[in-house]
Amino acid sequence: MKTAMQNQTVTAAARQAKAASGVLARLTTDEKNHALRRIAQGLREHAEEILAANKKDVEAAQPLVEAGELAEPLLRRLKLDEAKFADILAGLEQVAALEDPVGKITLATELDDGLQLFRVNCPLGVVGVIFESRPEALVQIATLCLKSGNSVLLKGGREAEHSNRALFNVIQTAAVEAGVPAAAFALLESREDVNALLTAEGLVDLIIPRGSNALVRFVQQNTNIPVLGHAEGLCHIYVDRAADLHKALAITVDAKISYPAACNAVETLLVSREVAQEFLPMVLDALREANVEVRCDESSIKELQLEGVKTATEEDWRTEYSDLILSIKVVASLDEAIAHINEYGSHHTEAMITEDRAAFDKFFAEVNSAGVYLNASPRFADGFRYGFGAEVGISTGTLHPRGPVGLEGLVTYKYKLVGEGQTVARYTGKAAKPFTHKTLL
Amino acid sequence: MKTAMQNQTVTAAARQAKAASGVLARLTTDEKNHALRRIAQGLREHAEEILAANKKDVEAAQPLVEAGELAEPLLRRLKLDEAKFADILAGLEQVAALEDPVGKITLATELDDGLQLFRVNCPLGVVGVIFESRPEALVQIATLCLKSGNSVLLKGGREAEHSNRALFNVIQTAAVEAGVPAAAFALLESREDVNALLTAEGLVDLIIPRGSNALVRFVQQNTNIPVLGHAEGLCHIYVDRAADLHKALAITVDAKISYPAACNAVETLLVSREVAQEFLPMVLDALREANVEVRCDESSIKELQLEGVKTATEEDWRTEYSDLILSIKVVASLDEAIAHINEYGSHHTEAMITEDRAAFDKFFAEVNSAGVYLNASPRFADGFRYGFGAEVGISTGTLHPRGPVGLEGLVTYKYKLVGEGQTVARYTGKAAKPFTHKTLL
Repeated sequence: MKTAMQNQTVTAAARQAKAASGVLARLTTDEKNHALRRIAQGLREHAEEILAANKKDVEAAQPLVEAGELAEPLLRRLKLDEAKFADILAGLEQVAALEDPVGKITLATELDDGLQLFRVNCPLGVVGVIFESRPEALVQIATLCLKSGNSVLLKGGREAEHSNRALFNVIQTAAVEAGVPAAAFALLESREDVNALLTAEGLVDLIIPRGSNALVRFVQQNTNIPVLGHAEGLCHIYVDRAADLHKALAITVDAKISYPAACNAVETLLVSREVAQEFLPMVLDALREANVEVRCDESSIKELQLEGVKTATEEDWRTEYSDLILSIKVVASLDEAIAHINEYGSHHTEAMITEDRAAFDKFFAEVNSAGVYLNASPRFADGFRYGFGAEVGISTGTLHPRGPVGLEGLVTYKYKLVGEGQTVARYTGKAAKPFTHKTLL
Repeated sequence: MKTAMQNQTVTAAARQAKAASGVLARLTTDEKNHALRRIAQGLREHAEEILAANKKDVEAAQPLVEAGELAEPLLRRLKLDEAKFADILAGLEQVAALEDPVGKITLATELDDGLQLFRVNCPLGVVGVIFESRPEALVQIATLCLKSGNSVLLKGGREAEHSNRALFNVIQTAAVEAGVPAAAFALLESREDVNALLTAEGLVDLIIPRGSNALVRFVQQNTNIPVLGHAEGLCHIYVDRAADLHKALAITVDAKISYPAACNAVETLLVSREVAQEFLPMVLDALREANVEVRCDESSIKELQLEGVKTATEEDWRTEYSDLILSIKVVASLDEAIAHINEYGSHHTEAMITEDRAAFDKFFAEVNSAGVYLNASPRFADGFRYGFGAEVGISTGTLHPRGPVGLEGLVTYKYKLVGEGQTVARYTGKAAKPFTHKTLL
């Protein structure tokens, strides 16, 4: 098996990946699925080798964890076992089963007799992925890129070096055997490669950072290439004066405790002053029972004589705890709730609990987030739960792709105009032929 | 009437524009169209004032043109007359007639009984526009932003200072009378304002530069905010070995001479070696007749004994002439044509002339441009010709919005999840309730 990057520069790899993307763009769905099955077979055949490589990484990481230089959860994420390996193979089956996003026509217009315009989904070209620890991320992203017809440049964390190289070699070899160009995959291994990747404008079409908030923020601030991802998930629940407080209670507890480290967990609870006196004791009891630390705005603690509650500072409104901590603020109005969310939030997902549909309509229109929910937990913000089959990431930018992103985040579109020799002159000036602009879809 | 920015900082204006965008997002189509008609009425009523202000700008520019400090065409673009004024008013009618892009539902999925997911088009928030000379651009962009529910920060050229201020004041006053917040519009007037605009991340959601290639390139290189536009239009026509040469001839002439300064005009003609001997004399004759200067690759000049043709250099393949000049290269294969376009093109629009549909399918898949045409002039790349009603710009980036962009370039989407109190815990773990994922659209 070849080793990955060696002396090749990232730019050269990106250039070759770009050239290979032309071939990838023309692969049929069957050809791509065949390659995915070939990869699954390769992984099955080389399972021992891969697990052995992973063991090396884990053994090298162990003393770092003991010395406090590496976080314990990182080690858990790094470690591949039989169960995770089975999940990887199951994931491959799922990717093969997904609808091919390439070739879908999203607009068809007759401009005139014999002159037809189509907007056709096509691959982006080259995707650069930077990920930390989890070796299964390499497989998932590489195969999603293959399914969507994109070349991929993969940069994994150094702590997963052996695992990544083993997985990469199996994937590339199997794909090549199935007729995919080798240059469709490249593994970047040094820190300097990241900078080269971030500046490869014109060669790399999308960067996907998967890892810590700090990693995502670094990537976002250091590239002009579009970035798919989110640095933070600072989600809110707003309990309106017209809320069903039982729904509010169940959703708040769910959104905080079902997976506190998730980006779609709630971090700040906003409560209408009109229901605070009734709702806060309820929710504080339930949160206390679930071992959630609560931090509340100072005036409400006094006014409502709340006990065992810490005082929230300005800093709390800006903090994604990713932990069993929740900040609570009592607000005077729907407008104050909206203003707070737009000011302090991360534009990820917010939920309003209310039975007043008109109030929610205002909330929906004015809250500037990728997801704005009525009477549902913000934790539903997820590609699988949305029915997308796979999740490439969750994006908190304003433009497309926004929110949970499935395979369609890895494609763009081209306009195809099919004519019979038409010139523009014929449709211009005084004797201009009119366009028909008839919708064909 | 108030004057525009005065001592207000751009950041403050952007912040107020952002706050106003919440109100704009909730305006109904009727309310927005009413405001557009009110603006048209205002412009009609203040026509004299506006033309007088424009006269001041033209008079100030005149000596600069005579001194060679300002280009003549700029002066022509600057000058407003009765005809252009009538066009402005007609344009306003058209914007009012356009379909409202806000509120359109592009995805609807039942996740479970009583839990429905919708993807709903919504305004971006705040759009920043930097434009040169043409005062009518101010009206067009301001009204397209209003129609799409966006606040807009407008930065015009200094040479159109009086015209822009007069137009802006009428628009803002009329819109306010129609119930639109004043802060939905801001006029930026100093050079420093541009830098403030480009760094207003989080407050400004999209920048649209309208003007020279140099302006667009400057904007693209100096902001992390998404930019809608194109620095260059370096379009190609490829005449395949299976081309109908009469179609090839008509399209080449059309694409070069119908409007040489347009971004969708052809700059480089690629000709298959197999038809060069027959086609080149034909096309050279026609181009000569149309006063087009031709520059051809050196070996073809010799081989085909072409007379009166300049030699093209490497620089020519990278040049958008925007003039009656065309570079020609003879290529050995379809692959060479594709490689040339992807290497030297600007990803705008390319046309292949062929009767071989399979060859075009390859061309379409592998050419990395917003428009890839079969047997049609690249000059069809235009929002109006595509049937979009209005054109915000033409984008040569890889991601959405790509190609000619209509009003949908000024909206994004949010996910709306409507539940009845559902928690994620209910859909997780061993006793997980399955999702129905039923398509509702």
